[in-house]
Amino acid sequence: MRSITGEGVRQTHAMLSELLPLQRSEVPTGTQVFDWTVPKEWVVRRAYVVNPRGERILDVQGNNLHLVQYSVGFQGKMELDELDEHLHSLPELPDAVPYVTSYWKPYWGFCLSERQRSELEPGEYSVVIDADHVDGSMTLSEAVLPGEAEDTVLISVNTCHPSMANNDLSGPLVAAFLYRKLADLPVRRLTFRFIFLPETIGSIAFLSRHGADLKRTMVAGYTVTCVGDGAPLTYKRSKHGDTLADRAAAYALGRLDSQLRLRDFWPLGSDERQYCSPGFDLPVGSIMRSVPTEYSEYHTSLDNRDFISFEAMERSVDACFELCRLLDRNLVYRNQRPFGEPKLDRLGLFPTLRTERLVQERVQAGLWLVSLSDGQNDLLAVAERSGLDFWLLAEVASVLESHGLLSV
Amino acid sequence: MRSITGEGVRQTHAMLSELLPLQRSEVPTGTQVFDWTVPKEWVVRRAYVVNPRGERILDVQGNNLHLVQYSVGFQGKMELDELDEHLHSLPELPDAVPYVTSYWKPYWGFCLSERQRSELEPGEYSVVIDADHVDGSMTLSEAVLPGEAEDTVLISVNTCHPSMANNDLSGPLVAAFLYRKLADLPVRRLTFRFIFLPETIGSIAFLSRHGADLKRTMVAGYTVTCVGDGAPLTYKRSKHGDTLADRAAAYALGRLDSQLRLRDFWPLGSDERQYCSPGFDLPVGSIMRSVPTEYSEYHTSLDNRDFISFEAMERSVDACFELCRLLDRNLVYRNQRPFGEPKLDRLGLFPTLRTERLVQERVQAGLWLVSLSDGQNDLLAVAERSGLDFWLLAEVASVLESHGLLSV
Amino acid sequence: MRSITGEGVRQTHAMLSELLPLQRSEVPTGTQVFDWTVPKEWVVRRAYVVNPRGERILDVQGNNLHLVQYSVGFQGKMELDELDEHLHSLPELPDAVPYVTSYWKPYWGFCLSERQRSELEPGEYSVVIDADHVDGSMTLSEAVLPGEAEDTVLISVNTCHPSMANNDLSGPLVAAFLYRKLADLPVRRLTFRFIFLPETIGSIAFLSRHGADLKRTMVAGYTVTCVGDGAPLTYKRSKHGDTLADRAAAYALGRLDSQLRLRDFWPLGSDERQYCSPGFDLPVGSIMRSVPTEYSEYHTSLDNRDFISFEAMERSVDACFELCRLLDRNLVYRNQRPFGEPKLDRLGLFPTLRTERLVQERVQAGLWLVSLSDGQNDLLAVAERSGLDFWLLAEVASVLESHGLLSV
Repeated sequence: MRSITGEGVRQTHAMLSELLPLQRSEVPTGTQVFDWTVPKEWVVRRAYVVNPRGERILDVQGNNLHLVQYSVGFQGKMELDELDEHLHSLPELPDAVPYVTSYWKPYWGFCLSERQRSELEPGEYSVVIDADHVDGSMTLSEAVLPGEAEDTVLISVNTCHPSMANNDLSGPLVAAFLYRKLADLPVRRLTFRFIFLPETIGSIAFLSRHGADLKRTMVAGYTVTCVGDGAPLTYKRSKHGDTLADRAAAYALGRLDSQLRLRDFWPLGSDERQYCSPGFDLPVGSIMRSVPTEYSEYHTSLDNRDFISFEAMERSVDACFELCRLLDRNLVYRNQRPFGEPKLDRLGLFPTLRTERLVQERVQAGLWLVSLSDGQNDLLAVAERSGLDFWLLAEVASVLESHGLLSV
Repeated sequence: MRSITGEGVRQTHAMLSELLPLQRSEVPTGTQVFDWTVPKEWVVRRAYVVNPRGERILDVQGNNLHLVQYSVGFQGKMELDELDEHLHSLPELPDAVPYVTSYWKPYWGFCLSERQRSELEPGEYSVVIDADHVDGSMTLSEAVLPGEAEDTVLISVNTCHPSMANNDLSGPLVAAFLYRKLADLPVRRLTFRFIFLPETIGSIAFLSRHGADLKRTMVAGYTVTCVGDGAPLTYKRSKHGDTLADRAAAYALGRLDSQLRLRDFWPLGSDERQYCSPGFDLPVGSIMRSVPTEYSEYHTSLDNRDFISFEAMERSVDACFELCRLLDRNLVYRNQRPFGEPKLDRLGLFPTLRTERLVQERVQAGLWLVSLSDGQNDLLAVAERSGLDFWLLAEVASVLESHGLLSV
Repeated sequence: MRSITGEGVRQTHAMLSELLPLQRSEVPTGTQVFDWTVPKEWVVRRAYVVNPRGERILDVQGNNLHLVQYSVGFQGKMELDELDEHLHSLPELPDAVPYVTSYWKPYWGFCLSERQRSELEPGEYSVVIDADHVDGSMTLSEAVLPGEAEDTVLISVNTCHPSMANNDLSGPLVAAFLYRKLADLPVRRLTFRFIFLPETIGSIAFLSRHGADLKRTMVAGYTVTCVGDGAPLTYKRSKHGDTLADRAAAYALGRLDSQLRLRDFWPLGSDERQYCSPGFDLPVGSIMRSVPTEYSEYHTSLDNRDFISFEAMERSVDACFELCRLLDRNLVYRNQRPFGEPKLDRLGLFPTLRTERLVQERVQAGLWLVSLSDGQNDLLAVAERSGLDFWLLAEVASVLESHGLLSV
């Protein structure tokens, strides 16, 4: 029974702790976070309906999507037409049970497939919802991989949606395995900060505590969601659209997925809309495969384990890892012998005997680097302009740096 | 006998005063206005030619286009070949009488159709031009609709061309009816300033008196000309091309005419070339249907009542009105709760129970507004970027403002 | 035996001195020029191979490409397989002798056609290279055409490649005849500075002496190379890509060659890579026909007199001359009567009797000039924006200037 608060989400964070060292923090019910208030915890002990034949149906024991999230407690009998006002189904997807929430307005309701709904017989139904809203707290977790610099890359994922696989079991899983790959790196220049929290209220609460800190240290950030399905990668740009986060994502994700889809920012979506709000205006984009609201299984029981695959999640981890590595390596160099070309043959970066017309890419890389390293262009800019591979440029830049020709 | 000065143009202004409260001013002959001097008034009592058969032809009584504008007085007899040097016709339009002027160089001449010219018989002709150039003044009129702010939208039209319908009876008529629609608005934020004047010398004289004032107050301006024919709307951009005048015209006119043609500035045309001169550099574009010089009836007797329609002029009024309303409503908001999203469900701008995937446009509008209202983007920028309708955004912005979430 | 230093290149400069008044300077062997050191002079007295039949082959007397440039002295006998390690040929061009250099690493080698190489019989060969590297100097030449202003246009060409026609006999020849055409102009506003030097080391040495001076005075510069073949013109932009050098070249060369190919900067090529190095960052592009490395005759014995033509070089001279003239005439005007339009009919630049719809290009030119002359736009910008011819605009600008309406 995971939701935006409560034991279910705490268990989720506990299980994720097996994968990475999460530091959990709790924000008490009633805490004011900007324009919002942290809600009570939702406790559901039992919830089901008994049909006129005496059969128990729509039991949350079998499928926790049957109960509208944050439903208030209720017990009573009623005819089908009265019950029907509290039922939710999707005519366009007759076999899917929709995922419906009412976090902020007291309500109760059940969700079921259109097919099941059409088979409900007239007669008297008993509704049993043994649920409470109690004072407690909202759970947020963090895991920080410190780097040589305080400059920070943020990875933000959601842990609130119950039962759904792509949206959003895939985000936390990909983040966890990304953490492990980054933790294995021998050195990291940048700090990588992973946060796991409920959507919207969670990121707003996080910003209320850490927003100023993020504003000071963040160089790029991403929400990661719906990364387990079979679609090509999608990158949704930050509000400014041309930040380092955006340039690096377009380059690195495009390297690993030639079908990468780039989309401009829009103010719906996941927590990027909080990070990009005008008061913070952080460079945060969103990494997805299928886009929430745009795939038919979205927010239904069809967004299940069959809809995602470990293989797709692994490729998502690889893409995010490539992106993080690239950010980590993306230095701005300054040519230390900027007057004319340095004599690169001494470094093996220019042929002494020129017999072929085609100039090696390594030679081209060296020339582009000494030409563009004016203290303004980062390696990514050199890669974008030259068309040469980022990692070739990075390797040649290291050679040039070790000989004192470039410096950071 | 309307021209750039004189009784004809004064009668025109008097007739327009029946439609809107014009304030007339007179600029005396000989007044220096920048590089120009206000000319004498042109008084024509009689003008015609008597052909060898004794018939009176080319009589201004029948068609005031027959006499070259500002012709000097002349009386004399001559053979056809001598007369012919003073005749003007259009071989490519054999039935049209051209409109010819010689404001700045003493000259006399007659205009006639190519057909009529070809039928002139040899023999002796008498020319009678009973005309004078006398000290007087040039007539300019203004009508100002004050708004809450001094910020001003200028609408500038010409009243000098005699007998021609599209160019330019249509401009003054559209301006007059636009005035009336704007006057009916219960409130106006902006001031709308309508000016009626002869082309070129009129706007230069106006600028010599009011240019500094316009420079201080004008937020957008338009010349309106040739707006009575059946062609789609044309918008000619101001010299800078990306001013508020240009952005608003492209958006608002494009809403009402999907065939709107956008043209970059060029320094011929109507009075926009005076307003955009480097000394003033005002944000003034031009609203047209057919473009002067580019339609074959231009500056001939064929630009007559048959060439225009009330229906086209009404649509022109509607388009200009939409543009003016949009400018009037185009505020720059600042989000007053800029840290994370405000809790919009309290305002009915976010669903508490989310059962449909499609998010209402009103909800989208609210989110775009809180996201982009950083004190830099005007409503038009939000409309351009979001693709949402300006007026939907304006209405939702009012809701947000009334709840203190946005402020100007 | 021309190379980057020595008597051969001095003879070349002496021969060029018959075409234009070159001022020669010598940079001594061992001089440190930024990251480089001026090399010793290379003196070759004899160089050939004797085959097993006793025949002298690969003799530099017959073709100086046979010896790898800067080969060290060597005398010895060896079997074919040992000799083969010092041979260079091009399998893809079986009849071409390649041009190979080893300026910076001691080495000896011979170049020959693939066909000849395949016919070498086994047996003992004698190698004779009677050559030395001796202290001396590197030869640079300059010719400066002073103008009214110190503002300078640089034309830079290479004199080091032996025997090759397009790359690069054509560059020095075109530069020399361009000099003569510019010298014939009655007045020049700009100073034109022509430099003749060996590639890379020459321009680096020149920059070490005159770089600060160029930085202060240069308004545009061009390397000119491979301008004798039959391909359309190519212009390679400077590193910034939008400097005056680039705008003027795109316009002027495009006027004379509708097939002009525009290419963005890349850091291989000729000496533009030295001029554009970050320490100098000069506005220098490159004018070519075929692009070095991209035509198959490049750096082989096939880049010979048959590959180029006087006709192509003449057209190259004309294109460069047009470019230089345009730069010389490209003033920034300021409208002296900027309030409204000046009364242009007084200057014959506006019709007093307007009878035709088509407005003369001269009239359009006058209006564009008074409209855009705000002290920011140069004549080229007026030409680019108006679509009118640069020289028409220049002529009309002179009329306007002579009447005090424009000033520089």
